[in-house]
Amino acid sequence: MTTPSATLATFAAQLQFTDIPDAVVRKTEDLLVDWFGSAVAGFGSRPVQSIARFALAMGPADGPSEVINERRRSSPYAAAMANAAASHVAEQDDVHNGSVFHPATVVFPPALAVAQAVGASGKDLLTASVVGYEVGIRIGEFLGRSHYKVFHTTGTAGTVAAAVAVGHLLKLTPQQMQHAMGSAGTTAAGLWEFLRTAADSKQLHTAHAAGAGLMAAYLAQDGFTGAAQVLEGPQGMAAGMSRDADVARLTDRLGSRWATTETSFKYHASCRHTHPAADALLQVMQANQLLPTDIAQVTTHVHQGAIDVLGPVVNPSTVHQSKFSMGTVLALVAQFGHAGLAEFDQHFLSDTTKTLRDRVRMALDDEVDRAYPARWIGKVTVQTTDGRTLHGRIDEPKGDPGNTLSREEITAKALRLADHSGGATPARMQAAVDALWQVAQWPRVGTLLGA
Amino acid sequence: MTTPSATLATFAAQLQFTDIPDAVVRKTEDLLVDWFGSAVAGFGSRPVQSIARFALAMGPADGPSEVINERRRSSPYAAAMANAAASHVAEQDDVHNGSVFHPATVVFPPALAVAQAVGASGKDLLTASVVGYEVGIRIGEFLGRSHYKVFHTTGTAGTVAAAVAVGHLLKLTPQQMQHAMGSAGTTAAGLWEFLRTAADSKQLHTAHAAGAGLMAAYLAQDGFTGAAQVLEGPQGMAAGMSRDADVARLTDRLGSRWATTETSFKYHASCRHTHPAADALLQVMQANQLLPTDIAQVTTHVHQGAIDVLGPVVNPSTVHQSKFSMGTVLALVAQFGHAGLAEFDQHFLSDTTKTLRDRVRMALDDEVDRAYPARWIGKVTVQTTDGRTLHGRIDEPKGDPGNTLSREEITAKALRLADHSGGATPARMQAAVDALWQVAQWPRVGTLLGA
Repeated sequence: MTTPSATLATFAAQLQFTDIPDAVVRKTEDLLVDWFGSAVAGFGSRPVQSIARFALAMGPADGPSEVINERRRSSPYAAAMANAAASHVAEQDDVHNGSVFHPATVVFPPALAVAQAVGASGKDLLTASVVGYEVGIRIGEFLGRSHYKVFHTTGTAGTVAAAVAVGHLLKLTPQQMQHAMGSAGTTAAGLWEFLRTAADSKQLHTAHAAGAGLMAAYLAQDGFTGAAQVLEGPQGMAAGMSRDADVARLTDRLGSRWATTETSFKYHASCRHTHPAADALLQVMQANQLLPTDIAQVTTHVHQGAIDVLGPVVNPSTVHQSKFSMGTVLALVAQFGHAGLAEFDQHFLSDTTKTLRDRVRMALDDEVDRAYPARWIGKVTVQTTDGRTLHGRIDEPKGDPGNTLSREEITAKALRLADHSGGATPARMQAAVDALWQVAQWPRVGTLLGA
Repeated sequence: MTTPSATLATFAAQLQFTDIPDAVVRKTEDLLVDWFGSAVAGFGSRPVQSIARFALAMGPADGPSEVINERRRSSPYAAAMANAAASHVAEQDDVHNGSVFHPATVVFPPALAVAQAVGASGKDLLTASVVGYEVGIRIGEFLGRSHYKVFHTTGTAGTVAAAVAVGHLLKLTPQQMQHAMGSAGTTAAGLWEFLRTAADSKQLHTAHAAGAGLMAAYLAQDGFTGAAQVLEGPQGMAAGMSRDADVARLTDRLGSRWATTETSFKYHASCRHTHPAADALLQVMQANQLLPTDIAQVTTHVHQGAIDVLGPVVNPSTVHQSKFSMGTVLALVAQFGHAGLAEFDQHFLSDTTKTLRDRVRMALDDEVDRAYPARWIGKVTVQTTDGRTLHGRIDEPKGDPGNTLSREEITAKALRLADHSGGATPARMQAAVDALWQVAQWPRVGTLLGA
């Protein structure tokens, strides 16, 4: 009578730190530090501030959990929502390719808030985070491509990921964990419709996932029950929100395949769907020593998901929207070799950027589409102003597991993000990051930036 | 360029008390008092207490808004969640037939909590409530029957209904209201999967709708933007969660057809899908002076929706689950003439009830199915122990607009519910209900039971 939901719940409840291979622990530390940089990158963002104001207005004026960018403390619920909103806005947080799911922004905020509230150790926090990654990634893979066409998987699968991470810290039994998953799954939400008008919903989706998932776990601890098979049941998430769900993905090599290590870091500050083409353009420009002015036209050969998400953005009017514009991203990469936060802020609507942007188009590519989402291949064809046709290609964009960032690069990225947002002084951020690299040694999880 | 979402948002923002016909105001007062009875009926319920404990633990220890059954005050967010959880558990709250949507439990809790927080008048509260009913009902109708097969419309449409009711109290502009609808729609959720294991999710759905809807409205007031067409857009609610959405229903005679007045009161304490058959059984038993012992078999002729929701409940093990058992409801009605809270608590698993229960079956009926959801016809065929075949029929179950409850019946129902739950003494409840009938005269909305 073991169901996929029950198997996942048992894994989530029973995983021990000592069960996790060293390399997976090290990768989780990498992901945690990288997430912290993204959280501080959200400092000063208008939609992030709105969510933090709401959470703090509706929550207690003090509490055990840190609202990082406000230097305030409140309840774990309020802190989880505010920090989750903060860490997705810069589009610099991690992504798991196969599930098209951003785990960090929905796993670490609720796990950190609850770890601070219950006095968990650094090892507990890392273990709970691995639980969130392993379960959330598998749910994203299970829900499939049809789900992602309408639903923001980070919001939907993310709600359950948040629940199991928090549930692990609350020491739920396997049965309680299954109830927590049921409550999380039945409140999971997030639609792509907001992209069409460049609305703020992406930040709401991560806040909602963190908050609803955390609530589901606390309710389960208190005896509140949820659907036993909210994922795969006949009136569950897949029944309502997917047409190509693959139930075998839910428990795929659970405990031996560590999906956490498959997670990619973001190098460019844009939607991940733009990165393969951006790196392929860099490759062909470097190989042929092209200047931006040499480019007459760029055709990016992409998967259907890129067209679905980026297609509606034809004339971006805001920095955030321009991160979903393939043309803008490639224009910045052509000019600066990197599309970072500073490049977006200063140049997303410059005349040069707009001219280059309008020379970029997307075309569905069969090889790229078949490889996706397991592999995100980048292919571009460049027509030069002197009449040449050049081809660029990369098989793993920068930040993917086979082309990953070093700890030095992760640290530098976090410092760059904090400096850009003004969320922490360089010295304060350096000290916080240095401390966070030692998280596995922390007897109790404290605040990251003080509050 | 006016879209259905924009039209609804403008209506929600601009409706004035003086625009609402007297009969609609009176009906809204009826619905408010009836809702209050259902809220107090949730006193002492385990899942309701879990949600209240979570809301109060994560919210401030004091605040402007009343958590009715806890005699506590907290933030509007915490109060809205706790009161919404409380008012759906007894299965005695109202229902709009055409949308298969329970408006009261998702509209009044957030509207009351915010009215108390902003110092709104009774007329403001009534106007905001009408906004919630009119918009929520139309969204339920729009999402259609395919939506309801998997999704609990009260949770999904209810999130947007809560948002517009709160948005009206926060005096949002039409544009802000549209953003609030966008944020609410993208966090709307609720799956029927929980019924299969008699889990507590129904109470979470109403709490979630009230909380997420309220949050959406506060965020919009603070400048946070949402999808412009979250209902009907190509990656919106209907695109993701319906296969038979009818966009014309969204704005159907907005401002002239008052859907609020189409709302039905519940007479039996069970799922509304059981009521037509229950009243038809009563009709045939009274017409033929049958005793329960005369009944050999009952065939209920029902719509497909009844089979979808009630079909999984074959052997109810809890009081709550038995409210979704057609056989149990008809067994109680046959014995007591009414399936109220006391009848369920005392007799849902008695030998007589179980014997009668197992003599009841459901059969899809073409006439009933075609009339549904506009009309909920009840038809039963009774085989008697002495070999007769008798037919019972009602065209409007008790509580429907054409067979409604009087104010005396509504008051008596509220007192009965409070007495059953122990949520308020008879004298305290009588005084509170007497005061609430005067809500249109209140200069400021105060607490209903004190806190």
